[in-house]
Amino acid sequence: MKRHIRPEVVSMKGYVPGEQPQEGEAVKLNTNENPYRASESVYETICAVCTKGLSRYPDPVAGAFREEAARQFGVSPNWILCGNGSDDILTILTRTFVGHGELLRLPSPSYILYRSLAEIQGARSEEVRFNDDWTLPHRFRVEFHNDPDDSAALRAGNRLRLVFLPNPNSPSGTVISREEILEIAESLPCPLVVDEAYATFSEFNCLDLVKKSPKIMVCRTLSKSHSLAGLRFGYVVAQPELIEQMLKVKDSYNCDSLSIAAATAAIADVEWLARNRTAILATRERLTRRMRALGFSVPESHANFTWNTHPEVPLRPIYEYLKNNGILVRYMDYPGWGDGLRISVGTDEQTDRCVDRIEEFIANPVGF
Amino acid sequence: MKRHIRPEVVSMKGYVPGEQPQEGEAVKLNTNENPYRASESVYETICAVCTKGLSRYPDPVAGAFREEAARQFGVSPNWILCGNGSDDILTILTRTFVGHGELLRLPSPSYILYRSLAEIQGARSEEVRFNDDWTLPHRFRVEFHNDPDDSAALRAGNRLRLVFLPNPNSPSGTVISREEILEIAESLPCPLVVDEAYATFSEFNCLDLVKKSPKIMVCRTLSKSHSLAGLRFGYVVAQPELIEQMLKVKDSYNCDSLSIAAATAAIADVEWLARNRTAILATRERLTRRMRALGFSVPESHANFTWNTHPEVPLRPIYEYLKNNGILVRYMDYPGWGDGLRISVGTDEQTDRCVDRIEEFIANPVGF
Repeated sequence: MKRHIRPEVVSMKGYVPGEQPQEGEAVKLNTNENPYRASESVYETICAVCTKGLSRYPDPVAGAFREEAARQFGVSPNWILCGNGSDDILTILTRTFVGHGELLRLPSPSYILYRSLAEIQGARSEEVRFNDDWTLPHRFRVEFHNDPDDSAALRAGNRLRLVFLPNPNSPSGTVISREEILEIAESLPCPLVVDEAYATFSEFNCLDLVKKSPKIMVCRTLSKSHSLAGLRFGYVVAQPELIEQMLKVKDSYNCDSLSIAAATAAIADVEWLARNRTAILATRERLTRRMRALGFSVPESHANFTWNTHPEVPLRPIYEYLKNNGILVRYMDYPGWGDGLRISVGTDEQTDRCVDRIEEFIANPVGF
Repeated sequence: MKRHIRPEVVSMKGYVPGEQPQEGEAVKLNTNENPYRASESVYETICAVCTKGLSRYPDPVAGAFREEAARQFGVSPNWILCGNGSDDILTILTRTFVGHGELLRLPSPSYILYRSLAEIQGARSEEVRFNDDWTLPHRFRVEFHNDPDDSAALRAGNRLRLVFLPNPNSPSGTVISREEILEIAESLPCPLVVDEAYATFSEFNCLDLVKKSPKIMVCRTLSKSHSLAGLRFGYVVAQPELIEQMLKVKDSYNCDSLSIAAATAAIADVEWLARNRTAILATRERLTRRMRALGFSVPESHANFTWNTHPEVPLRPIYEYLKNNGILVRYMDYPGWGDGLRISVGTDEQTDRCVDRIEEFIANPVGF
């Protein structure tokens, strides 16, 4: 039956998300979920929608959320497109801008889903390696590199159509400045998607750059910032001329009635957000300090996780030791770059349990 | 900025779903929603998930639903793929099977979303017209037609890759028999998707044909059958070898925690389904009888709507008259086929209100 499947799909491996155990009491610090319960207004809203019932189709454009977000951001609702998680938004972006055989760019190490999206689309992807200090090289912003096959690509018309830049980046937690992002957008021949999944935990964001440069689009998710990974709600802010085209590509009813109402209530509770952010930032500081004290190299994080490498200690055994003790962190090994542990910021208690175990392992490595 | 958008997207019109007023008390018989409230176990389950919280990611494959559905259908869970409404499923199917420039087929008049999916994919679509009695012509099952450009298409390799067949069909409510569907699948060079959005209201379905023919895939939605259009949950049943490939194409977390739990509870309540079906079928009979008495031609419906044409009375003014009186039905006008009113089966009371108004209009047409 495989002959009926598109060859691009057969040959791809498929994106593998982090482990998501549905049962049990694991300390789950592997997929950057927020450890605190979402605003109670979210849950009250969901129950209110249940009382009204779910027999009718939802609003195709999630108008209630668009209006609240537009009010907060100082734009019109037609600058905003909502999606079933930011995965849906990233899929819509790829399908709107990148055709078969065309090219999208992403930095590396970064979110490899962007590459999978190119594969599904029958497009090509190009990874531009971060510098060792997680700054971006000049080649990230130019259309063609001095590579032997570039002139051939140009002749074939396989032009660069879209660039993804997660900011803060994962797994590093590092950021590129607003000034540099604006410069990159001006240099590029195509739109630039600033993926702000983690921007709530940073000192700044790029939302207002969308007004300054029509090539900049900013996407967001409520998964981490609003403790709603289980709800699936994301959005992109872009100029109306682009949103209008993306609306054609999305599924007609891509957001359900519960998530539209819940997401609207979530962003309306700005006090919850401020309190939650303060808690996460304090624990991030604690996690960073303790890991550095154990000899780990930890770049300053602007997200709700930290990236931990070590000059001497092998990291995979630590990941396995933690897992055997009911603590999930993310072990990542990037070809040509090296490996590391990405640890989500949990509660103080979860964070201490994790670091205590790491300390224990380093003092007395099992099978090391 | 349009130069940055894929030309296929710029040139397409975009699928326009039926009107979905979010406020007000319209009698809504235009998008085949179920007029009854879903099983209370659905709403209780949603509240239970809220108590547990939504901070964690959902199960990427919606395991709980897969297991319950597999048990009911007598297959293994790996025969089932879940989606964010059957729109998501139809999108995944198109992206898995139909490449750029390749061909998909649909009958017409039918669900024009299939055509939009081809457009977004940069693929081509071919509409095969139903016979006047809503049976399918022989050309629906053969790879190449005797059209002048077919040999050119063959040379270009733009082969037929996927065929969609809604059964029952919309807007007609008519069905193709199981025997004929099996014959069509055997004749076709590619997989056949039987879209069973409305099969709950029919006397039969094609689920077990998936085991008989690896080329048959059956997709379903809970929107109509379980009164959950606002929830967004659909699924496809196909052989595991095909499901495995489609899993690579779907978004990682395409179903949220609320919808997975709610959909599982919904299909588990088989008594609710039986009661609901009995009520809908009785009202469908009433609607058909009354419309025929007014001189409408109404094919025997196997779905939760009827298709109403009239040899003399123009239909658009009826649609407008109903709308002005707070009753929404769907007016459809298919080029080369003609127009009609598709009326969803509501409660007896809603149905009577609608038909009373039509009767009133025909007796004394306004501006007719």
